[in-house]
Amino acid sequence: MKINGTPYRSIWRDAASGEGKIIDQRWLPHELRIVPLHSLADFATAIRDMWVRGAPLIGATAAWGVAEEMARDPSDAALQNAWEVLHDTRPTAINLRWALDAMRATLAPLPPDQRAAAARIRAEAICDEDVEINRRIGANGLTLLREIAARKGGGRVNVLTHCNAGWLATVDWGTATSPVYHAVAEGIDVHVYVDETRPRNQGALLTAWEMNSHGVSHDLIVDNAGGHLMQHGEIDIVITGTDRTTARGDVCNKIGSYLKALAAHANGVPFYVALPSPTIDWTVRDGLAEIPIEERSAHEVTHVQGRDPEGRVTEVQISPDGTGARNPAFDVTPAELVTGLITERGICPATTEGMAALFPEFATAAQ
Amino acid sequence: MKINGTPYRSIWRDAASGEGKIIDQRWLPHELRIVPLHSLADFATAIRDMWVRGAPLIGATAAWGVAEEMARDPSDAALQNAWEVLHDTRPTAINLRWALDAMRATLAPLPPDQRAAAARIRAEAICDEDVEINRRIGANGLTLLREIAARKGGGRVNVLTHCNAGWLATVDWGTATSPVYHAVAEGIDVHVYVDETRPRNQGALLTAWEMNSHGVSHDLIVDNAGGHLMQHGEIDIVITGTDRTTARGDVCNKIGSYLKALAAHANGVPFYVALPSPTIDWTVRDGLAEIPIEERSAHEVTHVQGRDPEGRVTEVQISPDGTGARNPAFDVTPAELVTGLITERGICPATTEGMAALFPEFATAAQ
Repeated sequence: MKINGTPYRSIWRDAASGEGKIIDQRWLPHELRIVPLHSLADFATAIRDMWVRGAPLIGATAAWGVAEEMARDPSDAALQNAWEVLHDTRPTAINLRWALDAMRATLAPLPPDQRAAAARIRAEAICDEDVEINRRIGANGLTLLREIAARKGGGRVNVLTHCNAGWLATVDWGTATSPVYHAVAEGIDVHVYVDETRPRNQGALLTAWEMNSHGVSHDLIVDNAGGHLMQHGEIDIVITGTDRTTARGDVCNKIGSYLKALAAHANGVPFYVALPSPTIDWTVRDGLAEIPIEERSAHEVTHVQGRDPEGRVTEVQISPDGTGARNPAFDVTPAELVTGLITERGICPATTEGMAALFPEFATAAQ
Repeated sequence: MKINGTPYRSIWRDAASGEGKIIDQRWLPHELRIVPLHSLADFATAIRDMWVRGAPLIGATAAWGVAEEMARDPSDAALQNAWEVLHDTRPTAINLRWALDAMRATLAPLPPDQRAAAARIRAEAICDEDVEINRRIGANGLTLLREIAARKGGGRVNVLTHCNAGWLATVDWGTATSPVYHAVAEGIDVHVYVDETRPRNQGALLTAWEMNSHGVSHDLIVDNAGGHLMQHGEIDIVITGTDRTTARGDVCNKIGSYLKALAAHANGVPFYVALPSPTIDWTVRDGLAEIPIEERSAHEVTHVQGRDPEGRVTEVQISPDGTGARNPAFDVTPAELVTGLITERGICPATTEGMAALFPEFATAAQ
């Protein structure tokens, strides 16, 4: 999407130098730092130290890392080493492993002298596939925003989103934000309420920056405010992303999503989840009972990062010394609170039947 | 309550010097700054610049300010001037006006040479009355925590609270925290989950400090986390305070309370509101339609205060330049989500009938 008028992806090849480039997202929203990645070690660092984040972007970055290494040394040993080095950066990220396996499956059967070119083609294909999936999610979700705009006689469509399911987490478009970008492109009057998303503030740091950079009307709100806005008719639709959705439609997403789903349900506001179908875990049904929730460092709760009055990015401690914290990173929204799932194939109800109708091949395998 | 073993009130007279003293709460939780107030101007500054906050404490501080001025000049003109200077500090605070009117009603009929002594007695009575009301709220709320402890066979009682309805907002005990302090005194194993309470972080800054200082087991959590904890049976009871409660039991409180009430209701967790009866507005029934919600500065949302790595209290900007914010300060929890109201007279259902049974004199007047 656009940064002050110029279209970007979150990872790209510089046309002049041929270098792979990314946005070092650790400095957003305060600084736009674009950095070239020159070696396997550079790519590994970018993933491990979270210069890039978001499952699809991590996968794409890993694929590019393999391609970079194949250009240097296309041997079997180098291929295996690249797989291991990159996999070790964030070993629990399912997309990372998927991308590395896809690269290896393509490259291993080839003679070494063909691997560099093939790796580059495959890595770019992984990126393009991600962009295409997200474009379709947006085109499908756009129909919902069109309906609201029509019902309101062209009046402003107010969307609430939580965390960053935006283009910075993918290669382009994002998931939850893709319908918004599509609606803006079509001239629909869209306004996005961006949940701050404590403790890591991805909403304030990333989604607000995306909206600001692309020129989408938006307001930042604290995570506490969404219920009040829904009570007063100020939200027309909630769209979030998801980290994992079960075969019956339970949605695991960033902590706090569940509270917004409860408020949406209580106030008749539709609650949609935008997701690429690989995010569906067909082996799990009861999300609350079966999905383990990562408990992260108390430091994320007791401290907040921002830009100090002198302009430096720093963090401040908000709590007294001696106070501990609990920090569950995700929660599960039961399917009955989810109005629908916006996928690359279309929109379906968050039910076993609805999902099976859209994805019969996976649903059958899961029975 | 206690600060590291020593009992304190939030406003008191120094036994040795005779000075009125307060805690300058702007520096909590990072520094305990106790300051003497020597003049009407000092008291006015302490209220206006929020060295003290919380309706009961503001009222008590104003009463002491009048007493201080009467010791200096007990004339009619000085009494009227003190009323005006203090009232102008925070003109919308209902408790402030109530305390000033009470002082004037006591003092105006007296000959000036009797006013200094009478003012001091009346100001101390206002404080003692507040302490007694909060003590009773605690004794009544204690029965709920006792029941939970008994049901759990002495297992830990997990309380969730939002914002700061603690002793720092009153003269002592607090409202929502008073049952907790009573339970701790009785040896009940209580643990408090403290909502951070963005945007002003009163939970992280004040409630966590209170718990820490008094030695109450607690964890800070982000406002997003409570729903997840309730889904997993980790919260036994929610107790919050309120800024205004209607004659049918709708509860206006700090933004985000409504989301916790929805989650409590969905998960069978009792949701109680602790309040001194003057907080009930018998003239209002439908809180959602009738209570105007203050919209505060966007700066509170885009910035966070804390202690930087060098130990200085500062604030950091979390959002990109150019991003605006909405900042409703309160929300309304409909009565049907409220399990009961804990008052100085006892506990009643959040219904017209339940409240009328406990407060027949006010309820009758409101019909």
